[in-house]
Amino acid sequence: MNDPFKPLIGITMGDPSGIGPEVIVKALSNRTVLDQCRPVVIGDPSVIDQAIRLAKVGLHVQQVHNLDQVGIDTGVIYVFQPEGCMSDSVVPGRVEARAGHAAFVAIKTATELACNRSIEAIVTAPIHKQALNAAGHAFAGHTEILASLTGTKDYSMLLVYGQLRVVHVTTHVPLSRVAGLISTDRIIRVIELGHKGCQELGIDHPRIGVAGLNPHAGDGGLFGDEELRQIAPAIQWARDRSLDVYGPIPADTLFARAASGQFDLCVAMYHDQGHIPLKMMGFRFSKEGHHVGGVNITLGLPIIRTSVDHGTAFDIAGKGLASPESMIQAIECAITMVRNRSRHDAGGS
Amino acid sequence: MNDPFKPLIGITMGDPSGIGPEVIVKALSNRTVLDQCRPVVIGDPSVIDQAIRLAKVGLHVQQVHNLDQVGIDTGVIYVFQPEGCMSDSVVPGRVEARAGHAAFVAIKTATELACNRSIEAIVTAPIHKQALNAAGHAFAGHTEILASLTGTKDYSMLLVYGQLRVVHVTTHVPLSRVAGLISTDRIIRVIELGHKGCQELGIDHPRIGVAGLNPHAGDGGLFGDEELRQIAPAIQWARDRSLDVYGPIPADTLFARAASGQFDLCVAMYHDQGHIPLKMMGFRFSKEGHHVGGVNITLGLPIIRTSVDHGTAFDIAGKGLASPESMIQAIECAITMVRNRSRHDAGGS
Repeated sequence: MNDPFKPLIGITMGDPSGIGPEVIVKALSNRTVLDQCRPVVIGDPSVIDQAIRLAKVGLHVQQVHNLDQVGIDTGVIYVFQPEGCMSDSVVPGRVEARAGHAAFVAIKTATELACNRSIEAIVTAPIHKQALNAAGHAFAGHTEILASLTGTKDYSMLLVYGQLRVVHVTTHVPLSRVAGLISTDRIIRVIELGHKGCQELGIDHPRIGVAGLNPHAGDGGLFGDEELRQIAPAIQWARDRSLDVYGPIPADTLFARAASGQFDLCVAMYHDQGHIPLKMMGFRFSKEGHHVGGVNITLGLPIIRTSVDHGTAFDIAGKGLASPESMIQAIECAITMVRNRSRHDAGGS
Repeated sequence: MNDPFKPLIGITMGDPSGIGPEVIVKALSNRTVLDQCRPVVIGDPSVIDQAIRLAKVGLHVQQVHNLDQVGIDTGVIYVFQPEGCMSDSVVPGRVEARAGHAAFVAIKTATELACNRSIEAIVTAPIHKQALNAAGHAFAGHTEILASLTGTKDYSMLLVYGQLRVVHVTTHVPLSRVAGLISTDRIIRVIELGHKGCQELGIDHPRIGVAGLNPHAGDGGLFGDEELRQIAPAIQWARDRSLDVYGPIPADTLFARAASGQFDLCVAMYHDQGHIPLKMMGFRFSKEGHHVGGVNITLGLPIIRTSVDHGTAFDIAGKGLASPESMIQAIECAITMVRNRSRHDAGGS
């Protein structure tokens, strides 16, 4: 099972009405991905079968009833169906409770399998918050589900696009509440999580830049003092422990410098501060206006979890237009993290 | 004086200890610039002379005592020296009150000349806030000086980099105060200013995207309600007047879409929301880490004013390393605005 050369990666199908199944089957027809891991989709085999027909990839579904049956046949997609994960004949682009429920069951099962080390990492396809909530699962998204299922309190969202890696101090809160949530303790925790995350991505000694909260990082207290009171002490704490941490750096400078390779990781104070530069890197506009290529990693969980950075894209679901680039990169990120975690656990540097 | 083909553009020298004079003389050795306007530097001729020697451009200073003396000789830089604007023998990279005062006097004179139509636009080189304040001129920067000198209450900062144009609802305030400053009235005023600014830049019917304030533009009120209460009504007001305005659009999507050409103008709610994507576009990292190429325009003034988007860069001042790209673009922007304002004033479409 724990073949160090081909880790077993569980991929949750996501909301079956969205583009998740389509990007999965497209990604699993990519030879580079298959050379590096044994993927198994956690979801409804009939949904994956429909996606194969939609995407016109030359593969077929092979259902497995236990994970030892996942082989290395590149012509098939191995699918493990959790009990209650049924959602065939859903309509592309429509919010449906049973679709939301099936997506939730897949995540729950994948998390359990990862917690008991039956799979080595999970990669998630996008879910739809309304469908999830319609099915009675009251969560804002994957991160909250995974934190709840694993009992994790301290976690952080790491987004990766090319050379730009950004970890967030706060995420889904109104902008008016952000300043009040910026604390030295939280920033220290996020720096630690980000540092460990970078090591799992293969960067042993990451150079970390911490953003200011205010314009010009407060300009010495002129436009706000969170930099002086909360952010600088966290940076000092990390530097005292020999972490390579810099800042607070004005946000408009930091991300541009990081994008040019001057930092391996940026610490963003709030959602849009981190997401704006990432999406500036990440958007490749097709005529439909959808982007490709970013990876979302939840740090702080007891399991490895990566995700595409896009949503269910209901507007193009069922049309065969979705790009698998983000899914491919999410799988490759998960493989890298499995390898580096093994290396660190084995006492490697 | 008002040659429609070669407008007379006043360029303030900026803080003589910074890179301002250097980027001016480099820009004024650019033939494309000289073909389009008659530039006159407002400042100390000896400072410009030093900059010419530093930059090794084959030009010499010709001091003028009234603006009728500004000719079209491409081998000279015409300099008009206001009374009290003296700052020779300053040390590059050092904060000095007399340098701050000389820079201030240049701005004040240029503003007066523009107000009485002796020059058609002003382009400003960077000043240093500490030097300015040391000289007893208590302003945060150019924008505040110009607003004060012209008695302007409603103004807004428009930044341009390539296809990305961003106008700001708030700028130099702590992030904790931003949400409280987001009002329908202010957003309407900024949309109007931005719309007019685009027309002066030659875009007659600009497509304007307005950013949300909160993550996911509030996600229907889940993460803040400023979008529903303040931003959406301003957009509706503008649409009712046939302006081509869209939003509120999540900020991480808006700027990436605009950068790809989907919008001519973005309305940012706060400083870093607009500056992060601009600098992601704008940074070209030399080994010194300085960027080039953006233009800062103050909208709402009775005069046309453009500026470089960088600071005095004291760390590279006096070394001959500064790039004139932003200054060249600021001058070209000013020329474009003079032409389009004339066209509109003359009743053209």
